[in-house]
Amino acid sequence: MRIAVIASIAHRVPPRGYGPWEQVAATLTEGLVARGHEVTLFATADSLTTARLHATAAAGYEEDPSRDAKVDEALHLASVFERADRFDVISNQFDFLPLAFSRLVATPVVTTVHGFSSEKILPVYRAYDDVTHYVSISDASRHPDLTYAATIHHGIDPGTISLGGGDGGHLLFLGRIHPDKGTALAVEVARRAGRPLVIAGVIHDRDYFRSSVEPHLDGEHVTYVGPVGPAERDHLLGGAVAMLHLIDFEEPFGLSVAESMMAGTPVVAHPRGSMPELVRPGVNGFLVDDVDQAVAAVEQAALLDRARCRADAVDRFSHDRMVEAYEALFERVVGSADAGPGRAR
Amino acid sequence: MRIAVIASIAHRVPPRGYGPWEQVAATLTEGLVARGHEVTLFATADSLTTARLHATAAAGYEEDPSRDAKVDEALHLASVFERADRFDVISNQFDFLPLAFSRLVATPVVTTVHGFSSEKILPVYRAYDDVTHYVSISDASRHPDLTYAATIHHGIDPGTISLGGGDGGHLLFLGRIHPDKGTALAVEVARRAGRPLVIAGVIHDRDYFRSSVEPHLDGEHVTYVGPVGPAERDHLLGGAVAMLHLIDFEEPFGLSVAESMMAGTPVVAHPRGSMPELVRPGVNGFLVDDVDQAVAAVEQAALLDRARCRADAVDRFSHDRMVEAYEALFERVVGSADAGPGRAR
Repeated sequence: MRIAVIASIAHRVPPRGYGPWEQVAATLTEGLVARGHEVTLFATADSLTTARLHATAAAGYEEDPSRDAKVDEALHLASVFERADRFDVISNQFDFLPLAFSRLVATPVVTTVHGFSSEKILPVYRAYDDVTHYVSISDASRHPDLTYAATIHHGIDPGTISLGGGDGGHLLFLGRIHPDKGTALAVEVARRAGRPLVIAGVIHDRDYFRSSVEPHLDGEHVTYVGPVGPAERDHLLGGAVAMLHLIDFEEPFGLSVAESMMAGTPVVAHPRGSMPELVRPGVNGFLVDDVDQAVAAVEQAALLDRARCRADAVDRFSHDRMVEAYEALFERVVGSADAGPGRAR
Repeated sequence: MRIAVIASIAHRVPPRGYGPWEQVAATLTEGLVARGHEVTLFATADSLTTARLHATAAAGYEEDPSRDAKVDEALHLASVFERADRFDVISNQFDFLPLAFSRLVATPVVTTVHGFSSEKILPVYRAYDDVTHYVSISDASRHPDLTYAATIHHGIDPGTISLGGGDGGHLLFLGRIHPDKGTALAVEVARRAGRPLVIAGVIHDRDYFRSSVEPHLDGEHVTYVGPVGPAERDHLLGGAVAMLHLIDFEEPFGLSVAESMMAGTPVVAHPRGSMPELVRPGVNGFLVDDVDQAVAAVEQAALLDRARCRADAVDRFSHDRMVEAYEALFERVVGSADAGPGRAR
């Protein structure tokens, strides 16, 4: 198939540090190329890919403060849809804005709903429910107002994450520093479990970081290492006894959770959002309701079979499985589009 | 002709208070309807028009803080371009975002460039220079990189502004409270001219208002009346001896300047942007380089023939002249589009 992948242009593809949407776009693109498809990745000019790269923005607008996000997005999306007739299918890994263009072209658009940044964006998704083919990234993230063509969990290339021994002895918080992600709760659980905590990720809520995280940083029991790239990420994940994911929101997927499992590191999580779909208690982690349970679960997690944890993650969250699922969906969508003027779901 | 007018959805059309883009969209729409055209106005649902109104947003996003501007703009513009084949021409009174849709439809798009909010948006205008037909709102506002189909000064319905006698005795500042607009300079000129100053308009720069305007407000020599609707605007304009427009930026047009002239009230302005095109020294105001000249000009302005000032404004800035100019341009553009697949300029 001739496939266009629309990536976010907040960051480069693949991202240097934070950027789960860009990471998924990269993994999908490379997987589709490996399967012999003719793929064009629409992303920033500094992106790295084996697909054909089409770029209108030199760099990500989050990485270059001189850029104007609205201008970059307009030129980015126009460049995709003005070339729509060159593709059999368009994979929208962006956000809601491509939907506004989707009725103007004949090429079917498959939109991966990475998350609803706010209830306010729902009207756009509702307005294109009969046009685009929505993919949910977990069953838990499905919105009752929308029709979905498939749920496809994010996938990770197992070659990029090695099985670790947990021999760093630390607990790990990996993600945005934000109340939603439970950074402060992780500090409390680590203290009570008597384990050092390493915190890695971008600071999304500076006030929260200052008031609830920074005061605990002592370089020994609690350390903050900032955002991390792939190599340090692999090292931190593999050395961790467990990852703490005590979220306070309905997380649509949680890429770092699947990454942790792939490193053999069990995840102790609140049962919110997609966590009950990702965490298999006693295999790759535990679901806990409060701090007491979390502290107990950390010690249980240390006893789990890390190789089995990884094997389960490779089985359920490998890039192959994700790419196959998208490929099957694209074939179904293209077949329906070819069958006639009506758009089948 | 079947004409679509895309209005800004920051405010209602016509605006209750501030909203020059929305005012121009309203004036143009009503004028085209009066000339027998089949006009659809794309604007907020609370807009008032004799054209057919098509709305996706209930209210302006600047008037309802619960609204999401990006979501509203996406649905607004999609609703226009998804119906493009119902129109002979699309008049874009919005901003740059409609350009991103313009290559996806066959209907010609005429884009009025109301201003470049930033140099950063130029790449979008450049990218569509060969597709859309640009209208500059003054010769002074033309950007050397762009090709323009016409310059069309904004127009005002003379029926909405009456000839005033200047019998309020005050000087008037009418516009956004912002350093660009020279509010503080107006205070100084009024003080030295020994005339009371009335300041009307929205506060766009709160720090500037607090530091440079508010300390001078005494309810007698300097008064701030906030944003004003049509009736109070007419009253303030008609009662003013002169309007002070001591701008510190390249103003693309200056609707309030033309309104003032139409009320018979001369304008004392810095010769920046479009001012040399609008102000005819000794007829409808004066161009001044500094405060001394401005103070002298205020007294000269008080002696000008207000009826002649208005007559000149009616002649040059009436809605009829603007609507005729747009009508002629639309006919030219539609004729070229009909003539063949190539888009003539």
